[in-house]
Amino acid sequence: MSDILVGLYLFERLKQLGVKTVFGVPGDYELMLLDLVPEAGLTWRGNPNELNAGYAADGYARVNGIGAVVTTFGPGELSNMCGIAGAYTEFVPIVHIVGYPTEAAQRGKNIMHHSLGQVGDGKFDVFHKMSDHITCATTVLHDPKTAATEIDRVLNAMLHYSQPVYIGVPTDVAFLKTPAFNLQVPLETVLPPNNPTSQSHVVEKIRGLMDAASSPIIIVDGGAVRSRILAEAKALIEITGYPYFVTSMGKGSVPESLQTFGGIYGGMASFPDTRKAVESSDCVLWLGNYPSDFNTGEFTERVEEEVTIDFQRFFIKIGGIRYDVKMKYVLEALLANLHQSPLDYKMKAVTWEPYPLDHPPREAQLTQDYLWATLGRYFRNGDFVIAETGTSAYGIPGSSLKHAKDVQMFNQTVFGSIGFATGAAVGAFVAGKELGTIKRGILVTGEGSLQLTVQAFSDLIRHEVNPTVFLLNNDGYTVERLIHGMEASYNTVPTWDYGALFQAFGPQFKTKYHLVKTPDDLDTLLANAEFNAAAYPQIVELILDKHDAPQSVKTATAAVEALNQKKG
Amino acid sequence: MSDILVGLYLFERLKQLGVKTVFGVPGDYELMLLDLVPEAGLTWRGNPNELNAGYAADGYARVNGIGAVVTTFGPGELSNMCGIAGAYTEFVPIVHIVGYPTEAAQRGKNIMHHSLGQVGDGKFDVFHKMSDHITCATTVLHDPKTAATEIDRVLNAMLHYSQPVYIGVPTDVAFLKTPAFNLQVPLETVLPPNNPTSQSHVVEKIRGLMDAASSPIIIVDGGAVRSRILAEAKALIEITGYPYFVTSMGKGSVPESLQTFGGIYGGMASFPDTRKAVESSDCVLWLGNYPSDFNTGEFTERVEEEVTIDFQRFFIKIGGIRYDVKMKYVLEALLANLHQSPLDYKMKAVTWEPYPLDHPPREAQLTQDYLWATLGRYFRNGDFVIAETGTSAYGIPGSSLKHAKDVQMFNQTVFGSIGFATGAAVGAFVAGKELGTIKRGILVTGEGSLQLTVQAFSDLIRHEVNPTVFLLNNDGYTVERLIHGMEASYNTVPTWDYGALFQAFGPQFKTKYHLVKTPDDLDTLLANAEFNAAAYPQIVELILDKHDAPQSVKTATAAVEALNQKKG
Repeated sequence: MSDILVGLYLFERLKQLGVKTVFGVPGDYELMLLDLVPEAGLTWRGNPNELNAGYAADGYARVNGIGAVVTTFGPGELSNMCGIAGAYTEFVPIVHIVGYPTEAAQRGKNIMHHSLGQVGDGKFDVFHKMSDHITCATTVLHDPKTAATEIDRVLNAMLHYSQPVYIGVPTDVAFLKTPAFNLQVPLETVLPPNNPTSQSHVVEKIRGLMDAASSPIIIVDGGAVRSRILAEAKALIEITGYPYFVTSMGKGSVPESLQTFGGIYGGMASFPDTRKAVESSDCVLWLGNYPSDFNTGEFTERVEEEVTIDFQRFFIKIGGIRYDVKMKYVLEALLANLHQSPLDYKMKAVTWEPYPLDHPPREAQLTQDYLWATLGRYFRNGDFVIAETGTSAYGIPGSSLKHAKDVQMFNQTVFGSIGFATGAAVGAFVAGKELGTIKRGILVTGEGSLQLTVQAFSDLIRHEVNPTVFLLNNDGYTVERLIHGMEASYNTVPTWDYGALFQAFGPQFKTKYHLVKTPDDLDTLLANAEFNAAAYPQIVELILDKHDAPQSVKTATAAVEALNQKKG
Repeated sequence: MSDILVGLYLFERLKQLGVKTVFGVPGDYELMLLDLVPEAGLTWRGNPNELNAGYAADGYARVNGIGAVVTTFGPGELSNMCGIAGAYTEFVPIVHIVGYPTEAAQRGKNIMHHSLGQVGDGKFDVFHKMSDHITCATTVLHDPKTAATEIDRVLNAMLHYSQPVYIGVPTDVAFLKTPAFNLQVPLETVLPPNNPTSQSHVVEKIRGLMDAASSPIIIVDGGAVRSRILAEAKALIEITGYPYFVTSMGKGSVPESLQTFGGIYGGMASFPDTRKAVESSDCVLWLGNYPSDFNTGEFTERVEEEVTIDFQRFFIKIGGIRYDVKMKYVLEALLANLHQSPLDYKMKAVTWEPYPLDHPPREAQLTQDYLWATLGRYFRNGDFVIAETGTSAYGIPGSSLKHAKDVQMFNQTVFGSIGFATGAAVGAFVAGKELGTIKRGILVTGEGSLQLTVQAFSDLIRHEVNPTVFLLNNDGYTVERLIHGMEASYNTVPTWDYGALFQAFGPQFKTKYHLVKTPDDLDTLLANAEFNAAAYPQIVELILDKHDAPQSVKTATAAVEALNQKKG
């Protein structure tokens, strides 16, 4: 078997994993490497800056499975640290490829641009060390002989842990030869099987608890999304007939159209009937529980360990006892078991309305409650909705998906970096277009968050993914106002002309701007056929009162303020 | 003496150091802390994102002496890592204040938003560890009793090394009491004196070399700017009458109006007469040498160690022998010595023209050579010019300052993060306005670089610093094209409508857009009285051919390409 350029080997491996687009920002330490992107049959889509590129790779990975971003040594990679750390926190597998100075320049200890300088220092491993903290594996390819094996080691770690990795490629090493043999050995895209004895034991235990339960339920949470066991989750919901729930982080992962859908659970942030149903259950099958503050109504969930079957990527906890078996295979085995010997459980429609605001009060001006309820009726099959951290992420769970069963959603619940959604939308919508799985790409964000990554508008427009951007303009950081500083000047943001900006970021493309101030404006727009089917990017600016928020936000932010003020 | 809130103590210390404005982005872990900014008599100027905030603090510090930026734990601080690393590399003292979760939340190991998540992990020190690599001192204020002392320790390190520091403030600890006593003890704003014996020895040695020299010269470099010894540098230039030079990093640090000014030195990137004068000197007083690739014409400087007196912040090297004495005090003593017993050296005007392009050829379209020569004639006393890394930083040294002796300049020569200049301009111009030292704030950048931090337009407009932005539009990353990939698609950037963008980022302010395509356009604009004196922000879009570059850029980029391709 012949040799292959190190850079080409890397991109060939990415292609094997289903990556079609590589995001990033060019820099001189990576320019030659980028020549190999098209050579490997991949598409390069440059971004206005590295943080936007990292967010795009994250959004791409959430839809496509794996994402990749290339930045330059130093400023480039550091500007993307927030993007990588977010992916680490939220279990999104992306490859951060960093173009390094040549091996000779590194050994010569010269003060190269993009380094930390410092006469005689010669430390070229500082940024690598920093990335160690926010990735599950790293390498810098100093030696072409081991490069193929190193690339495989790191990519396999990414697949195993579903977290980002870091690969540094010196500009000269990219064009040296490494053995091509490894390309014949598939990367480890599936987890190793469970120990059969452990798995049988766990499945039997779970089945026993299910048979004995009088009020069993299922919760689909963030870990289920990130571990890609949604098909199993859907099958479990259907075969059991149990009432099922999602969390904020699980919103959009399973259809809400069944009669057994019980609502969004998040402790005190839940509707009372939803909360009561969950917290009174005697058997909770919790798929991918991720108990972060924002995902749990600020730690106000009250589900006893004794009644919980906690399904995680690498283990299952039953009544607090941990078994090191992977959830995916346990679910498969459990489903087989349930097919073979059906449950003695009678499916009943839930007796409460999970979305009490299906017909919200109309006021003279547009309100948050009206907005979220109405958006739910606007969504339809094939929509992909990305909601920004803050008001949007809190509000969107209140948008019912019962009218459209194939609507996907995500937000960055745990890491909660504002600006993420706008950048991630670029990657998600590009992936959806490549895969043909997205009919309409919808971004819901606030004007405060938009300001961090507004240049992503340029990519949203030019990649022809025809997004619809719902921009909540409430004159500042409303979520933060509710937490602290209702009238503080630091919670204001400068006034921008969002319609003009949207067009100015893509002047040669057709785009459209809509202004919505009242419930009537919103109803009229959402009923407009051209708006619904537009084959060009649109932005809808929604004017909202700066003190207005959905009830869930008000409850949660009060709790955040209390926690932040709580003395140590 | 009474106690004081920890947060207030921190801001009081910053005020003592001359900080008037604090930059940053609010986040819920720091909101309460921000209440204390006005209480300490400081001004909060929020930025659209954290990287812009970090750059603003850097620009502010370069003008004001010290800068400060507040971000939130996790995403906020990570988004500013590139800004902090740049300040570390370029010796710019800024305080990075990070709002942390409460002590109770940290101890409770809960999964707080903005953390790295991971059930049961409870690591709240990861980001702190990452910042350790790019700062000269760090602390997280876990204990109010030691907070005052910790703050002082870290701020004193910043003053000593002239590099950034990191201070984490848990949201509850900010409002606990710490002893106010320390506020009476001044921070160490001056370096400790040299050992008198060492200093006398070094001064005598230098004086002896100067007396023996037949072709002595002075070079003012980046370290002189960063160690703030420019008054001493100017005095040395005047009292000696030696031919003097600046490097790219030293451009704008001393007037170029004397007859002894010999040009910009950077190895092969210099004009031939300049290079010859420097490299044939038998005594080179090199103030603040910073031998990075971009500052040395890609390591093509040829000044022998034997003839060099290398003045550094903490040491002097004479003919390669190092003495641990600080440059500032050695220069003061040397100046006293020269006053007391004048040199026997006859000042002569240099015989060459340091700017051969004072009357550049006019072509039909605007060229780079025409632009830089013409900008030199436009600059006047009181101008402050910030040039972006890349074409602008390479081009601006070619703009003569001989017509205006009080023009200050900077660029980020060593770290070279594109996007820096636009963000830094915000802070530099705000500081100049506060101090009354800037008459016109001028930003020179390229459209590729602008795209990284374009939201800074919003701050440039709303803080009423009335900048003039010269935007070089050459349809992509021209510097990178010249390095590698002349026609590669990755070196293109999307087309934006820069005039519309500028206005849309500050719709309620008067701004003006100018389009320049020809030498005539440029001459007419620069001669226009209203343009020169405008009390509102202006942007000048300069259309340049995508292959055009100043000769210095062509030479340097060819060398970069050669280095990047050099096999290890």
